[in-house]
Amino acid sequence: MNYPMVFYLTGNLLKAEAGLMLLPLLVAVFYGEDTVLSFAITILLLLIIGLLLSFHKPKDRAMYAREGFLIVGISWVLLSLFGALPFTLSGEIPRFVDAFFETVSGFTTTGASILTDVESLSRGILFWRSFTHWVGGMGVLVFVLAILPQSDAQTLYVMKAEVPGPTCGKLVAKVRHTALILYGIYLAMTVLLIVLLMLGGMPLFDSVLHSFGTAGTGGFGIKATSIGHYGSAYIDGVIGVFMILFGVNFNLYYFLLLGDFASVFKSEELRWYLGIIAASVGLITINILPLYGGDPLHSFRYAFFQVSSIITTTGYTTADYSAWPVFSQTILVLIMFVGAMAGSTGGGIKVSRVAILFKNAVRGLRSMLSPRSVRALKFEGKPLEKQTLGSINCFFTAYILLFALSVLLLAGDQHDHVSNLTAVAACINNIGPALGICGPMGSYAPFSDLSKIVLSFDMLAGRLEIFPILMLFVPSTYRRR
Amino acid sequence: MNYPMVFYLTGNLLKAEAGLMLLPLLVAVFYGEDTVLSFAITILLLLIIGLLLSFHKPKDRAMYAREGFLIVGISWVLLSLFGALPFTLSGEIPRFVDAFFETVSGFTTTGASILTDVESLSRGILFWRSFTHWVGGMGVLVFVLAILPQSDAQTLYVMKAEVPGPTCGKLVAKVRHTALILYGIYLAMTVLLIVLLMLGGMPLFDSVLHSFGTAGTGGFGIKATSIGHYGSAYIDGVIGVFMILFGVNFNLYYFLLLGDFASVFKSEELRWYLGIIAASVGLITINILPLYGGDPLHSFRYAFFQVSSIITTTGYTTADYSAWPVFSQTILVLIMFVGAMAGSTGGGIKVSRVAILFKNAVRGLRSMLSPRSVRALKFEGKPLEKQTLGSINCFFTAYILLFALSVLLLAGDQHDHVSNLTAVAACINNIGPALGICGPMGSYAPFSDLSKIVLSFDMLAGRLEIFPILMLFVPSTYRRR
Repeated sequence: MNYPMVFYLTGNLLKAEAGLMLLPLLVAVFYGEDTVLSFAITILLLLIIGLLLSFHKPKDRAMYAREGFLIVGISWVLLSLFGALPFTLSGEIPRFVDAFFETVSGFTTTGASILTDVESLSRGILFWRSFTHWVGGMGVLVFVLAILPQSDAQTLYVMKAEVPGPTCGKLVAKVRHTALILYGIYLAMTVLLIVLLMLGGMPLFDSVLHSFGTAGTGGFGIKATSIGHYGSAYIDGVIGVFMILFGVNFNLYYFLLLGDFASVFKSEELRWYLGIIAASVGLITINILPLYGGDPLHSFRYAFFQVSSIITTTGYTTADYSAWPVFSQTILVLIMFVGAMAGSTGGGIKVSRVAILFKNAVRGLRSMLSPRSVRALKFEGKPLEKQTLGSINCFFTAYILLFALSVLLLAGDQHDHVSNLTAVAACINNIGPALGICGPMGSYAPFSDLSKIVLSFDMLAGRLEIFPILMLFVPSTYRRR
Repeated sequence: MNYPMVFYLTGNLLKAEAGLMLLPLLVAVFYGEDTVLSFAITILLLLIIGLLLSFHKPKDRAMYAREGFLIVGISWVLLSLFGALPFTLSGEIPRFVDAFFETVSGFTTTGASILTDVESLSRGILFWRSFTHWVGGMGVLVFVLAILPQSDAQTLYVMKAEVPGPTCGKLVAKVRHTALILYGIYLAMTVLLIVLLMLGGMPLFDSVLHSFGTAGTGGFGIKATSIGHYGSAYIDGVIGVFMILFGVNFNLYYFLLLGDFASVFKSEELRWYLGIIAASVGLITINILPLYGGDPLHSFRYAFFQVSSIITTTGYTTADYSAWPVFSQTILVLIMFVGAMAGSTGGGIKVSRVAILFKNAVRGLRSMLSPRSVRALKFEGKPLEKQTLGSINCFFTAYILLFALSVLLLAGDQHDHVSNLTAVAACINNIGPALGICGPMGSYAPFSDLSKIVLSFDMLAGRLEIFPILMLFVPSTYRRR
């Protein structure tokens, strides 16, 4: 393990977080709030520790997979630990474990909240809370990589560990160049969303924060009833569509920019993604029809928004779906696991993995019928490499095992099974609201500290696709070469 | 598809079922019950149809995997359809869909019941109900194969499809010889259990029926409070231990008979199996201590019995575990999925598969840390073949997908999430009692007909390890060569 390099990069990262925190500081100054001091103290702390860690540029800059994974794992934990400080220092989330949960939920774009009265928060704090979504959306590391003076070979290792963000490497030769292009798309779509929301009559502050939450597929709201607060079909529609757009693999937008429409239309994952959305919206629209006076348009509006919000793992709500029929709730829970497309800002198992697992199961059935005529598994028109299938299977198993273990650990709290099960589902898939006590109208506040830490871990594991965060607990990770 | 051969073997199978049904007929005659006629009519029907189907011995006796799977899939469905007749004809389970559910539950050794008052049933019917467990336990087909005049090459194909029963092929050259040995062990252990139960003061009739349920890891009780009815620590202990014994791979008993103790002690799956049992019993004993007045022995007695019952997928109860703390309930639900050892009479994913999936996930983590030093996956001291890992992964995926789909279909009934989820878990893993409405004190009666059919399908799919039963729905299964 090349520790000097780990320290150096981690230090740079903390400095970057200090920079990011200037924005909420400015917001707090603008609104004349007394949280200014909390942000200032945190920024100072970040700068001091960041400078100390990155003071010496290491001579040996060799980075391997292990270093990459360690930096990713550690950095998400550190960013969340420091990011939680303003919440606690300002007294708006007095207990640090709660503030940590909330910040992890922010950076991992989960949107699970321990707050029971979000509207009582100050504007600076609300801004920081939603801003973590936007930063986390494209992957903190992609951001850092874009501003850090690193050679491509080294950054690639870190990028490889940072799976959730778009897979840049294949698009253009220069990683930083790709990162900048993807950030450009991300920024442009966010700005477009802000403008569209303001056109719908949403105030600027609200529009910016909700756009952060939508772009990062995070879902932190600033109103007790989330997006439902505005009661506007236009706003529901705009956010509903943009959530789906941010759940699309960003490479497809890059192809669109290049005028390569064929690649977009040919995308098998995109067809699965839209197909699952259409089927879920259709079934729920019919199922909840009686609740909306038999009006299919009304029913469609709420079904579409909620499906879009859940499958993209955003977590905004316009209706209390915990009052919907069990059938609709079950669909929502199932698509929690599916998640968005790979290379999007969304979480979950990812549509591509689910599609490949499904096709592999069908192939297994076929090969039992005709053992001698086994065909190769194809995805996106190309035969799938055995290694890819192997790691998807491995991921799926680790995912299910972590899920089961987490549910067991939460069970110590004596809440009901549905709350435990869906809380883990909502956190590991980076969604936010679940069912039961942590349903759309509830919060994660009733969970014990141990459960909050388990759920924070799940959010990180889900966001980093399990392995980088598990590695922090494997002793051999820290072994010197 | 060699249809003449499929008809011929299926016909023989129905004749065999007629033979098996003579036993409950005799019981009904002995107790002078008027269900005699119901059994007689069914036996006659089975003989007529069986004789018609098997009248012509086919000339082309070629059997391939497809024929094997089709026979297994069809035969379990047919045996259950005909096996359900006495229940409905006697009027003791008036609705045929309920009787079918109950019979599938019997043959698949699940033990899920739609009965709300089991004690009102006649003795002949109770005997048939429990006897299906004993027959299903070793696999109906293994039984049929042992009495049918088939060449080994042909039987092997059917055996291969009949996964739940012990894998005979590797023990001795002659399949029929092995089947007889395994049946001998099975019979001897059942007789021993009957004797031990009678020594504990259980009446002969009860002892026989509960031994059927224990040997087949089925779990149909004949009392409203299952084994708890007898309130005897001795009986709890005997059945608790025997359930674990019937959850052991039968090959290990064969090794014991041969005096090969080393193979038994070296069994990695056995160590996982006993380890999981020990850990679960330990945790639950502590967790339920306050419910049993802080008496660790008392608490251990109920914890041990329930863990043994659930992990072996039997389903007997001595306590209403739905009143236990959520933590204990969660452990029970988790070990529902683990199931017993491969090659035992138990169901579930099987300990060996869970162990291999776990080891593969750990290996995946290791290989990410040190990509160049990937070691081969070992199980039972030998490197695991890639194909084996592939089919385990494939099975696991199909299993999870079927689980998710079933929960969705059940959700249409508007029962609560916990009932839906655990009902599917208890049926697909062939356990029986679940939580919620179908908990240890409840029944499957409140479910709709559609849900009962879905759950029957899940029981069959679980018992036949998914693929043979799914194949019945694939058109190409029926294609002529």
